[in-house]
Amino acid sequence: MIKKENYFDNCATTRTDDTVADIIREYACERYFNPSSLSEASTGVFNDISKARETIINALGGKNGRLVFTSSGSEADNTAIFGAIKNNKRFSIVTSMAEHPAVFNSMNALKSKDFDIRYSPLNSDGSVNIEKLSEVVDKDTQLVCLMHVNNETGAITDVKGVVETVKRINPKALVMADGVQAFMKIPVDLARLGVDIYTVSAHKIHALKGTGGLWIKNGVNVNPLIYGGGQENGYRSGTENVVGIMAFAQAVRSNIPFVEENAVKYGEFKKILSQKLAVFEDMKHLCGSNSSPNIFSVVFKDIKSEVIMHMMEDKGFIVGTGSACSSKHRTSRIGEAINLERYYHEGLIRISFSKHNTEESVNGLADALVAVLKQFRGIK
Amino acid sequence: MIKKENYFDNCATTRTDDTVADIIREYACERYFNPSSLSEASTGVFNDISKARETIINALGGKNGRLVFTSSGSEADNTAIFGAIKNNKRFSIVTSMAEHPAVFNSMNALKSKDFDIRYSPLNSDGSVNIEKLSEVVDKDTQLVCLMHVNNETGAITDVKGVVETVKRINPKALVMADGVQAFMKIPVDLARLGVDIYTVSAHKIHALKGTGGLWIKNGVNVNPLIYGGGQENGYRSGTENVVGIMAFAQAVRSNIPFVEENAVKYGEFKKILSQKLAVFEDMKHLCGSNSSPNIFSVVFKDIKSEVIMHMMEDKGFIVGTGSACSSKHRTSRIGEAINLERYYHEGLIRISFSKHNTEESVNGLADALVAVLKQFRGIK
Repeated sequence: MIKKENYFDNCATTRTDDTVADIIREYACERYFNPSSLSEASTGVFNDISKARETIINALGGKNGRLVFTSSGSEADNTAIFGAIKNNKRFSIVTSMAEHPAVFNSMNALKSKDFDIRYSPLNSDGSVNIEKLSEVVDKDTQLVCLMHVNNETGAITDVKGVVETVKRINPKALVMADGVQAFMKIPVDLARLGVDIYTVSAHKIHALKGTGGLWIKNGVNVNPLIYGGGQENGYRSGTENVVGIMAFAQAVRSNIPFVEENAVKYGEFKKILSQKLAVFEDMKHLCGSNSSPNIFSVVFKDIKSEVIMHMMEDKGFIVGTGSACSSKHRTSRIGEAINLERYYHEGLIRISFSKHNTEESVNGLADALVAVLKQFRGIK
Repeated sequence: MIKKENYFDNCATTRTDDTVADIIREYACERYFNPSSLSEASTGVFNDISKARETIINALGGKNGRLVFTSSGSEADNTAIFGAIKNNKRFSIVTSMAEHPAVFNSMNALKSKDFDIRYSPLNSDGSVNIEKLSEVVDKDTQLVCLMHVNNETGAITDVKGVVETVKRINPKALVMADGVQAFMKIPVDLARLGVDIYTVSAHKIHALKGTGGLWIKNGVNVNPLIYGGGQENGYRSGTENVVGIMAFAQAVRSNIPFVEENAVKYGEFKKILSQKLAVFEDMKHLCGSNSSPNIFSVVFKDIKSEVIMHMMEDKGFIVGTGSACSSKHRTSRIGEAINLERYYHEGLIRISFSKHNTEESVNGLADALVAVLKQFRGIK
């Protein structure tokens, strides 16, 4: 079994906290009542969900909107996109080539129905080029849909700048940001960013897979993707995932005080890795100066990162090879999206930190990675 | 806190088993790896999900199809409906007035887009009247969507008969059955029933809220509701809810040997309740001769079951008042759907059993209910 200190694929998913696991058991085995029933026991659970919602809204700085619990960041993205757009093909939708598959493939589905989907140019780190964004947005743009932190390069897009640019051209256009890799990694203040819609995921921050959140600014309309009993104020039906929701809030509550402290620690980790890996002259950093502290992404010429990953696992370390959600399809788009030379395309190693990593484990990781890369290349 | 023996709203939701809770902790805190990543640790989890899928397919007798994990029965129903239909309004869709809101409100959404939605007549217990069904199905019917066990009356619809009737009229029509209240309560053998699509939910059988299943017969096409990383063979994207899926399979594995035994036990419970409640001459049984063993639904003239429910909770018992999913909206359709006299419409008491109930707790429940009803009516 891989030690939690040696798990470096925290952008793919994270270990659930022990305190979170205690909450899970409580709501699974003791307070298991259906929050939509009318008993006092049920109303108690319903109220706990309301408090959980408040906790997360506060952490997002999103008091100017509502939070809808979903089953994943992907469901939140899909609901945002399909629920916010007008079914009128005159009105274009703007996104980018670097988006998560939940956004990218939703856009493809719309494209196959002849919607006008436009792609914003990117900077070399994968963030949105705001100047060039204004060339694809026009007064008939209905939705702009971009990620806050890129899941492969860690690049932070200036969401506030995006909003200002878009609204200057068309005040009626909605701006949605996918915040799955941003929330609890960089400071997020939705009221300040000015976005209309924002999506988050629980399992990236030490809670459970199976829970996500869709934040919607007051006054913005998003139709449901799932119809039924009218839970989540009608925005999303289906019996509430009580355990997942309570776990999400607990993880937010217990981890948010350490976001800044972690960022400093991760900065030190990155220095260690940069120094030790500097022996490889072909290594190229994908993380620019404005990237999320928890992601260290590098590419090497003519390697297959999947092979490196397996060799690293044999040494007791787990590293990432890019988005878990596309890894089975071997179609990482990021190389093309940021115009990386072709010999780099299969060589992405994504190291993503959590609070469980230590200076010692990072040193171990760096040494192992150096050894593995040398072995792969036949260097003594 | 309500004792689990005294919780009689098991159609709304059930207590998660302790053995299931152990599995949850294991996959939350130890085997937390993303099943879509390529590490061996991740592949191990992916394989465990495959085994869980097999376990549930076997329990459903559904080897002639595939199972897609969803976030709820409601999501499964929505995916089935919106994913299976052709977007051509010439082709009608048949359902009933007694369906769960996940189906009923999805149909309403389609109706608002001018789809031809037809309602099959029902028998007095809420099951589908198969003879009259043939009057609403025709050669342009594309989908027939009905529940296997009614969530309020427990009535079992003859799904095999529905399939035969529908296919005789139009072999191309798809038949979907909502099996949320049937699975693990009555024998379910999908290959024998001949349905094309079947939906189930985990939290009704001692696993977690937040997990459901969509079974699709081989050869039947259902488009996804959620696009993204292509998980669940492209039928349903989003990082797999590992904990929810493993919990679901564990609950199936440990409870399925007792389905028949429970049915016998619940039969005895029903006798106790019938006998003790017989003092109320206005009581009307909603469960006909062919109903699910775990549901005992009765109506009383001119009572408000919500008030009775609260009075019962004060005595330490939880009973249901109908579908939890519609209880907050106070719009139970079942009364109208089965032509119940109006003075019965607010008086539905649904008592639904689980393995935790005992003869003693059922006797206690019956005595408490008699006392509460007498008190409500001012009878000494």
